[in-house]
Amino acid sequence: MLQPKREYTDLMHSERVLLGPGPSGVDPRVLRVMAAPLLGHLDPEFLRLMDETGELLRYVFQTENDLTLPMSGTGSAGMDTVLSNLLEPGDQVIVGVCGYFGQRMVDIARRCGAEVAVIEGEWGRIIEPEQVEDALEAMPHAKLVGLVHAETSTGVLQPLKEIAALAHSHDALLVADCVTSLGGAPLKLDEWGVDAAYSGTQKCLSCPPGLSPISFNERARAVLNSRKTKVPSWYLDLTMIERYWGKERFYHHTAPISMVYALREALRIVAEEGLEARWERHDLNARAFCAGLEGLGLKTMAQPQHLLPSLITVWIPSGVEDGAVRQFLLQEYDIEIGGGLGPVKGQIWRVGLMGTNSNRKNVTLALVALSSALREQGFQASVAEGLAAADAVYAS
Amino acid sequence: MLQPKREYTDLMHSERVLLGPGPSGVDPRVLRVMAAPLLGHLDPEFLRLMDETGELLRYVFQTENDLTLPMSGTGSAGMDTVLSNLLEPGDQVIVGVCGYFGQRMVDIARRCGAEVAVIEGEWGRIIEPEQVEDALEAMPHAKLVGLVHAETSTGVLQPLKEIAALAHSHDALLVADCVTSLGGAPLKLDEWGVDAAYSGTQKCLSCPPGLSPISFNERARAVLNSRKTKVPSWYLDLTMIERYWGKERFYHHTAPISMVYALREALRIVAEEGLEARWERHDLNARAFCAGLEGLGLKTMAQPQHLLPSLITVWIPSGVEDGAVRQFLLQEYDIEIGGGLGPVKGQIWRVGLMGTNSNRKNVTLALVALSSALREQGFQASVAEGLAAADAVYAS
Repeated sequence: MLQPKREYTDLMHSERVLLGPGPSGVDPRVLRVMAAPLLGHLDPEFLRLMDETGELLRYVFQTENDLTLPMSGTGSAGMDTVLSNLLEPGDQVIVGVCGYFGQRMVDIARRCGAEVAVIEGEWGRIIEPEQVEDALEAMPHAKLVGLVHAETSTGVLQPLKEIAALAHSHDALLVADCVTSLGGAPLKLDEWGVDAAYSGTQKCLSCPPGLSPISFNERARAVLNSRKTKVPSWYLDLTMIERYWGKERFYHHTAPISMVYALREALRIVAEEGLEARWERHDLNARAFCAGLEGLGLKTMAQPQHLLPSLITVWIPSGVEDGAVRQFLLQEYDIEIGGGLGPVKGQIWRVGLMGTNSNRKNVTLALVALSSALREQGFQASVAEGLAAADAVYAS
Repeated sequence: MLQPKREYTDLMHSERVLLGPGPSGVDPRVLRVMAAPLLGHLDPEFLRLMDETGELLRYVFQTENDLTLPMSGTGSAGMDTVLSNLLEPGDQVIVGVCGYFGQRMVDIARRCGAEVAVIEGEWGRIIEPEQVEDALEAMPHAKLVGLVHAETSTGVLQPLKEIAALAHSHDALLVADCVTSLGGAPLKLDEWGVDAAYSGTQKCLSCPPGLSPISFNERARAVLNSRKTKVPSWYLDLTMIERYWGKERFYHHTAPISMVYALREALRIVAEEGLEARWERHDLNARAFCAGLEGLGLKTMAQPQHLLPSLITVWIPSGVEDGAVRQFLLQEYDIEIGGGLGPVKGQIWRVGLMGTNSNRKNVTLALVALSSALREQGFQASVAEGLAAADAVYAS
């Protein structure tokens, strides 16, 4: 018999302020329900909790889509689910790429055997409707247009409504990645005409990672139901999963019970605050933080008129070492912020102000801690100007 | 704006004794760590917890396989992962089917584009080595043999060692479904020569559902690394996921932090008890429960010499209504047991004695509650004989 390699201690770890690109800090109410004893996945009491979770998800997605449920995986499982359930080999697809997660959409669409037309955008900017229109004209049989609503690699919020109309006029679906916008930035699936969307629990919902809410409208559902081939992944096959989340309650896989408890509680908190109040709070704190950064002498990356309020990107000043600053913040302040991905690795930081974490205390703390880290690196950030600029936003 | 449909109450639910096919009851220590605040998925402190979880997983799988990690999905995600990472279109595969989960393997292998030879077994019995040998001779280029080690639909424990040797002598891999055996029944990947295996957290590990531990030895890894095509599901692509769980720490998806805390704690508890002691405990309680069932006047379903100690199947006596009994147990005793799947739906019950739930208290309680439910249905179960038979096993 092989023996355990060593003794393992009780779980002990630092208490971090999670201001990176996610996971974000989890609301204490949500943490408490994570510790609740389990129900079986077919227990009538659990089925009721599932129904309530579905109703609350429809509220935060602003939709009446029947097919709205959390997939049993983290946010990226949602991207994989939506694309692999809608696409079949040989389909034509248009994907807008102006960041890391757009690239991931392309990778997944190609694995589905689709022919992908990439709209190349600039990192830090949105995809313009004209670019989508050109792409739709060049690929008139495109089955769907995939766009990232909240590009977590660049901090840009992509407008969707006009593009949804364009896609529909060409008989294509609009699929949106809402991982970092759901619950933190305006998102109205039905009003805007978004046909299929996916998100994650670990961003603006202030819930641990582990589920990926998705929503399909009737147009998207019709595409799903008219597939000629089986969905390649059994685990992500919505034609079966909807039978468990729907009225039939047909067993597919054992649902992650505790995570459903947690998501339901997180969504209750959103409903208590009210979606619009929550969007405004995220917007206010993001504007204050951006003003503060400029006050410190830093430059933000994203197009100012398309700022993602839940995730702010900022250029690292020349001469300042990325890793050293992030390590300083973690060690001295227990603050996590994120580094850049792909072509902007080492060039930007990503600061998340998501869910419960989007508050004045964190804005102020992050500005002060960052100015301290920058001074260690020889960059004279003006903490007084930074704080004054942030305060001015709150006062206005 | 759409508004929430109603007010949603605090999470409130009954405290169940989970004696179904899973999820099983979760150890209170595991529930406590579920409520711990989150670390980031690249936090050095979290990376250490991942390493420890990997070490502990190797212990419970009895393997030194480097590629041993928990997939971010429930048990069935593991089945999908193992098969879709090893198989490519056109591959030939042999699958033993003597229950529901063997059938699922066939479904998944076919989605991978494989040609599947099914060994048809009898529900409630094992697949015999001779059947596998015949299949290997009929399909000499089979890439792998897939077998369910612990068939949760029938309560049968499939011997693997002899079949692993047979598979290897035909240059095929042996893949085993260990969802309901890991931590509850003898399982020694390295000694037996199992090349790839998967499991779930919500059975004999007494941890909530949400992760699927998998393990690949070097033979299986060589197959993975020599793929000609990309793994169809991006989310389940081990060639990327092993770069996050391995030394590189390359970002793939945001790990379900709380579930990793929980799995580590659950595995610590297994290590503290010791695997062999744990296997013996499961075996003792299963034997006592089976003796008790016979004492009540019931007949168990599985081949007695291949009884799965974590899940016992029992025939429903004629004239007794399946649903009424299960509802009685739930309402009067807060006990969940499982019904039959597929061809034995309505004909058997499935009683799980898994992890912390495998104890004398539950054996006794289940026998008493079941005899009470049966009397309600007009079946005169002899509770005294049932309890005496169980006690005799404990006394021997």
